[in-house]
Amino acid sequence: MVDITHKNNTLRTAVAEATVKVSHPDTIAAIQNRQVPKGDVLEMAKTAGLFGVKRTSDVIPDCHPLPIEYTSVDYEIEGLQVRIIMTVKTIYKTGVEVEAMHGASVVALTMYDMLKPIDKGVEVQNIRLVKKKGGKSDFKDQFK
Amino acid sequence: MVDITHKNNTLRTAVAEATVKVSHPDTIAAIQNRQVPKGDVLEMAKTAGLFGVKRTSDVIPDCHPLPIEYTSVDYEIEGLQVRIIMTVKTIYKTGVEVEAMHGASVVALTMYDMLKPIDKGVEVQNIRLVKKKGGKSDFKDQFK
Amino acid sequence: MVDITHKNNTLRTAVAEATVKVSHPDTIAAIQNRQVPKGDVLEMAKTAGLFGVKRTSDVIPDCHPLPIEYTSVDYEIEGLQVRIIMTVKTIYKTGVEVEAMHGASVVALTMYDMLKPIDKGVEVQNIRLVKKKGGKSDFKDQFK
Amino acid sequence: MVDITHKNNTLRTAVAEATVKVSHPDTIAAIQNRQVPKGDVLEMAKTAGLFGVKRTSDVIPDCHPLPIEYTSVDYEIEGLQVRIIMTVKTIYKTGVEVEAMHGASVVALTMYDMLKPIDKGVEVQNIRLVKKKGGKSDFKDQFK
Amino acid sequence: MVDITHKNNTLRTAVAEATVKVSHPDTIAAIQNRQVPKGDVLEMAKTAGLFGVKRTSDVIPDCHPLPIEYTSVDYEIEGLQVRIIMTVKTIYKTGVEVEAMHGASVVALTMYDMLKPIDKGVEVQNIRLVKKKGGKSDFKDQFK
Amino acid sequence: MVDITHKNNTLRTAVAEATVKVSHPDTIAAIQNRQVPKGDVLEMAKTAGLFGVKRTSDVIPDCHPLPIEYTSVDYEIEGLQVRIIMTVKTIYKTGVEVEAMHGASVVALTMYDMLKPIDKGVEVQNIRLVKKKGGKSDFKDQFK
Repeated sequence: MVDITHKNNTLRTAVAEATVKVSHPDTIAAIQNRQVPKGDVLEMAKTAGLFGVKRTSDVIPDCHPLPIEYTSVDYEIEGLQVRIIMTVKTIYKTGVEVEAMHGASVVALTMYDMLKPIDKGVEVQNIRLVKKKGGKSDFKDQFK
Repeated sequence: MVDITHKNNTLRTAVAEATVKVSHPDTIAAIQNRQVPKGDVLEMAKTAGLFGVKRTSDVIPDCHPLPIEYTSVDYEIEGLQVRIIMTVKTIYKTGVEVEAMHGASVVALTMYDMLKPIDKGVEVQNIRLVKKKGGKSDFKDQFK
Repeated sequence: MVDITHKNNTLRTAVAEATVKVSHPDTIAAIQNRQVPKGDVLEMAKTAGLFGVKRTSDVIPDCHPLPIEYTSVDYEIEGLQVRIIMTVKTIYKTGVEVEAMHGASVVALTMYDMLKPIDKGVEVQNIRLVKKKGGKSDFKDQFK
Repeated sequence: MVDITHKNNTLRTAVAEATVKVSHPDTIAAIQNRQVPKGDVLEMAKTAGLFGVKRTSDVIPDCHPLPIEYTSVDYEIEGLQVRIIMTVKTIYKTGVEVEAMHGASVVALTMYDMLKPIDKGVEVQNIRLVKKKGGKSDFKDQFK
Repeated sequence: MVDITHKNNTLRTAVAEATVKVSHPDTIAAIQNRQVPKGDVLEMAKTAGLFGVKRTSDVIPDCHPLPIEYTSVDYEIEGLQVRIIMTVKTIYKTGVEVEAMHGASVVALTMYDMLKPIDKGVEVQNIRLVKKKGGKSDFKDQFK
Repeated sequence: MVDITHKNNTLRTAVAEATVKVSHPDTIAAIQNRQVPKGDVLEMAKTAGLFGVKRTSDVIPDCHPLPIEYTSVDYEIEGLQVRIIMTVKTIYKTGVEVEAMHGASVVALTMYDMLKPIDKGVEVQNIRLVKKKGGKSDFKDQFK
């Protein structure tokens, strides 16, 4: 684990995304109309994702435990794709990129699990960092 | 959560994969030669993945806790891609697809975290089910 | 911890309830119209409760880990009270009463946490077993 | 999750209580004389409660992880009631009310679980905030 | 992780021990008279140990999750040594040796943590398997 | 739990060690040549130990949750003994001795679990603090 004892606290923000692709428009409709038998997919997946962000250092060996000070989950639906946008903030010595990516992956996997009974063709595509702010190197993807 | 009290135990196998794509051949070399500063990437990620599989029901709301009876992680390196193949078995009333996918995602995210300091272009691509055996509907992807 | 190695598996059901009392009808309206700033209270609390049920043996010292095979959360709103009804089933050697009660308490506390910013008078009242089936002694409360 | 990146650290204290009501004086005597078959109820429940406080952000979706800097559990026995008083302190940007309430609920449920074999009429009553200090709005219940 | 899908359930028992050595008879007296400032050492350490046994597969990578059906902690005090005897039982396809050893180590470390403020010379000595029953090879140490 | 709200943050370092003793030189050779059937013992045990350090406050009742800012695991092999040296650092109000000892014990138990199939005589010996720096009382063992 990287030694961060000499580092200073700064505000860090990270935005990660994951994409869930379904195989039929009916699946999207079921999500939007809260008619998926297992429950309200977007709300339940968001809740699981909040826990996912907070538990990152318990899942990824080299991640430092850190004070998660803000987390949000947004969804953008386009065609057969649900894009999950996970934002995480902290004021700490190290960034929250992996926390955001881990949270996004948990949201995506929860959606997969809940949609599986009604759609056999669901896939999780691309978990990636979109934006990172604070710390040594800012990073901004060609995001929009 | 789906009621599984009336179901029978059968042998279930699931194979999932995730792909980690790096941006430079040097990263692949560093992985293979165990020279990544954060440690032995393939071994540490595998270990994290074992925990990931076992902790699936604690991460995904509707997943039943179940007796994980076998888990393995294999890697296939081709060009800039590391393909993670996660196999899970149980003898239980419900399958282990989400367990395999969750484990694969944890392996991939651990690799991302460990490679981040030496390669800013790492991405996690495609977490998906490759094979499922046992239960109502066998499933086999056009896997090779 | 009680020795259960000599016991037989039977179907066990437990129903527990917890009551959350708010101080103003506006709070109930905000819950029902999904307008609580922290999010959709009933869905998020249900999700937290599913995890709560599954994690009971990790929270209560003498509880045996056991295969949770069914969990559901229902809500009944009457006046200023939200009654949480948590049902849990297993086929195992010991019952799921504490699992149901623990799950109900987590749902209630999540509601408390989410409602706190808009209502300072929220209280959690009465976490109790309503029904128990299977095992040595059936138990049925004067539930309605 | 509420964004707390702009807030300042201040000393925060919260006191919550939960009440366990038993159905017979013999149960109280068994507790006090450490003769409950499952073990020393007050000590084991206190220990479970310490873990409960520390694990709050892993149980309640919107709770921020925070540095628990003090926790204590006190018991007051009156007639058939055991009142659990859980005190929690932190120096952080947000309060510890839910932490105190969650800890109190875990103490109460552990008592319920341990007393169940000797008293079928145990109930958990009223988990509520008694006192809150620090942060925007101090709060003091008519606590004695 | 070893594949156990083909194995049969049998009753398995494991007994492990750990030894905590203190540096002064006053420490032993404080333990026995429940006068250690941090609390009742033997009861709190036992409680922590119960959780430790149940959480073994979440701590040791290759351990299968399994149904812990019995756990007990006993203490034997001789001179400056406290011997911790942890017994675990399951009916499952694989044994509970590591569960017993992990539980014993958690009891020992909890004692260490609680005694540290009053005795700087506490050591944890010898965590080892004492007896194993069930499965392929019974094992019995020259235990007394 | 000790009240640390009045304490100041200082840099704290703790080094703990645990010793694993095997019964035959072949076991040492299998470890060094990465030929143990369960996997790469030193890497997997190190990974488990990182998680162990970070999870200490969830395992030991009175341990405060704290920001682990550095962790390393080193091994020294002499004859039939593998000495595990676990170093932990934080900048916080309380030390990381128990974190270091807990991490060392998890490394040792993982080694035990992985070596068990090829060597029935493995023992975990002596988990102890070697060095402590920062805080009220520095401590240095006659370590070499």
